[in-house]
Amino acid sequence: MDHVHPLPAYLVQRYKGWKATKYEENSAWYRRLADEGQRPRAMVISCCDSRVHVTSIFGADQGEFFIHRNIANLVPSYEPDGNQHGTSAAIEYAVTALNVAHVIVLGHSQCGGVQGCLDMCHGRAPALEETTSFVGRWMDILRPGFDLVKDVPEENQARALEKEAVVVSLKNLMTFPFVQSAVEAKQLSLHGLWTDIGEGGLESYEPATNSFVKV
Amino acid sequence: MDHVHPLPAYLVQRYKGWKATKYEENSAWYRRLADEGQRPRAMVISCCDSRVHVTSIFGADQGEFFIHRNIANLVPSYEPDGNQHGTSAAIEYAVTALNVAHVIVLGHSQCGGVQGCLDMCHGRAPALEETTSFVGRWMDILRPGFDLVKDVPEENQARALEKEAVVVSLKNLMTFPFVQSAVEAKQLSLHGLWTDIGEGGLESYEPATNSFVKV
Amino acid sequence: MDHVHPLPAYLVQRYKGWKATKYEENSAWYRRLADEGQRPRAMVISCCDSRVHVTSIFGADQGEFFIHRNIANLVPSYEPDGNQHGTSAAIEYAVTALNVAHVIVLGHSQCGGVQGCLDMCHGRAPALEETTSFVGRWMDILRPGFDLVKDVPEENQARALEKEAVVVSLKNLMTFPFVQSAVEAKQLSLHGLWTDIGEGGLESYEPATNSFVKV
Amino acid sequence: MDHVHPLPAYLVQRYKGWKATKYEENSAWYRRLADEGQRPRAMVISCCDSRVHVTSIFGADQGEFFIHRNIANLVPSYEPDGNQHGTSAAIEYAVTALNVAHVIVLGHSQCGGVQGCLDMCHGRAPALEETTSFVGRWMDILRPGFDLVKDVPEENQARALEKEAVVVSLKNLMTFPFVQSAVEAKQLSLHGLWTDIGEGGLESYEPATNSFVKV
Repeated sequence: MDHVHPLPAYLVQRYKGWKATKYEENSAWYRRLADEGQRPRAMVISCCDSRVHVTSIFGADQGEFFIHRNIANLVPSYEPDGNQHGTSAAIEYAVTALNVAHVIVLGHSQCGGVQGCLDMCHGRAPALEETTSFVGRWMDILRPGFDLVKDVPEENQARALEKEAVVVSLKNLMTFPFVQSAVEAKQLSLHGLWTDIGEGGLESYEPATNSFVKV
Repeated sequence: MDHVHPLPAYLVQRYKGWKATKYEENSAWYRRLADEGQRPRAMVISCCDSRVHVTSIFGADQGEFFIHRNIANLVPSYEPDGNQHGTSAAIEYAVTALNVAHVIVLGHSQCGGVQGCLDMCHGRAPALEETTSFVGRWMDILRPGFDLVKDVPEENQARALEKEAVVVSLKNLMTFPFVQSAVEAKQLSLHGLWTDIGEGGLESYEPATNSFVKV
Repeated sequence: MDHVHPLPAYLVQRYKGWKATKYEENSAWYRRLADEGQRPRAMVISCCDSRVHVTSIFGADQGEFFIHRNIANLVPSYEPDGNQHGTSAAIEYAVTALNVAHVIVLGHSQCGGVQGCLDMCHGRAPALEETTSFVGRWMDILRPGFDLVKDVPEENQARALEKEAVVVSLKNLMTFPFVQSAVEAKQLSLHGLWTDIGEGGLESYEPATNSFVKV
Repeated sequence: MDHVHPLPAYLVQRYKGWKATKYEENSAWYRRLADEGQRPRAMVISCCDSRVHVTSIFGADQGEFFIHRNIANLVPSYEPDGNQHGTSAAIEYAVTALNVAHVIVLGHSQCGGVQGCLDMCHGRAPALEETTSFVGRWMDILRPGFDLVKDVPEENQARALEKEAVVVSLKNLMTFPFVQSAVEAKQLSLHGLWTDIGEGGLESYEPATNSFVKV
């Protein structure tokens, strides 16, 4: 384990700043969260992308959102085959153990994962098609979305596919029996969002028109 | 898709507040992030738990950390079998496409996933042992860690296993060839942390003593 | 006063968001409210319970309702003994200084104060019977209501007593001479409501049948 | 009870609008709040004044704040004499039953109750000095604050006294044994705020300088 190093000093300093300020001001609440457990109102499925902070956008403090982040905010379909499915595990825990009231899928502009999928579907990214490419195999989840955007002018395809990543995930969520039954019992509602990083925009998926509308 | 609903109004208000303030003050930076792409210094692997906000603890703004969040901040071992591996995809993208300089695994106290693993290993959670339990199969990654803590007094086992979740993940990271080669080329360093939610504490893994020390 | 701390940062951010949006859009009205004074149409007496927002239910903006909130939305009877009576002071100010046209008493389901009263009346809550229990002494106001519900099947008593809390308060309101004379002069009308938190239901007290009917 | 009337039609209409929109979008959460009980992070003590909506200022939805509202957001000192003390009951419930992490006292500009106290202390409001004046007796709580502002130029006295109402309440809060012990155990922190209705301003009490500073 000689590849493991101490925390860089700039992060130590920042942590100490947080401890002396934000933690200090909220220690009573954080102690309660520790003692009584979390009770988040919503699960958010967001991208790992460093430019997307759902807690910032929604002014959320510790305890509000249960957040799963993966490449391109994707939800695979239900496949209980005994293998390791990190996203499915997170959804199962949020819906069946935490009883969250909302699952929010948050897509975003300039998504590198979605661009990779687009390149792969256009045959421009042979490396991603290798069996050994984890990113490629992960982005396979979004392949059905490509069929829906391939007739879009090419300069708009990435954005269209980013939004399909949200729609595909919302559809796949309903393949999980525990999601479906919670939705039908009106104990859970699903929401699809897409944010424009540069413009700070936010659009919400509207099923009636199958489109995203500005919030 | 009639299970998809508009965003709750309180989140719409909060988003609009963010847009008019934090976004407005930082729009030049967010536009650059959109135009030039992200360039995060570190990848963080953290838990979905609503009580753990790595961006808050380290005062991080958009663009700094590429963040993957799953149940119990686990990294499975390298298994390029052509199936979907969301965590492995995130690591591959961070190390090979984004060339992050650090991968930080952040564990935490009161982890529900770790507690589930502990119950399962003690034979107290038959439901988690089912093939169909996504949480149970996901927590199998941590089973080897249980062997190392089973002789610890039971009231301390959860905390010990939370820390093993970090150590197991650091070990598994090195099974990825692209992680190993980046580490050996000194282009990447790994770090293990564990945070105490109630106390706001932070401990760092020290390989020399195989223990966690206060930051 | 070293027990006083600055406002938590997440609330600072949210306030700044409100200032830049809702305040900005309505500043002309808020300035008029400041310059010309408030002129609310109704007083609402509601519970402190965090789940009951009368302004949300009735889409009310600043300036519409003069709102007193106490445990279990109770009105004590008229007792001008020179002691401090916060609820009586609020009613006096609303009726004699602001000349509100309506006083609305809003009860609700799952009321912790009413449950405490019920436990106390059943002899199951000795701590609430102590002289020093502020909650217990406050809930004494509702004791006469218990006599009216004690023959109701026990699983329905809490709900019945929540509604009696509204009826008792409506009765006690009329013991205030200034309320009675305003009512008789047809300058004031009283209203009793009860809301079901989980179902979002609203029921209105109907004196003719001495019952609550769905709005 | 022929003084009790049905709800005015304009409020029925608004309620139905809320039921069809905000309630519908959040019904899963409201059901959870009903089933699992409230767990507010903070208690807010605010004025009944129709122009002050703490939930709006802080973008709070149902479940976040336990809110007590009385004339001039006052807290009397601890007096367990067996009489009815509505404010003390609310504080007792929030701190001992709900274990809130914060108590926030929110004062405001143009406060009619504070103006009444000022008039009374200047001898200009004999009616408020009557034993039978509930408002007068309630505002007696603030009399010690008048001594601290009487040398302020008269045009600034109201504002100064509004802020003293916050400071007096913060002091009186600490006379409650259960508040003091929770504060000492770091399970509770207190906060003092004052908002300018017309300007949408917010100031926070700073004990070190005994002054209010802009947030």
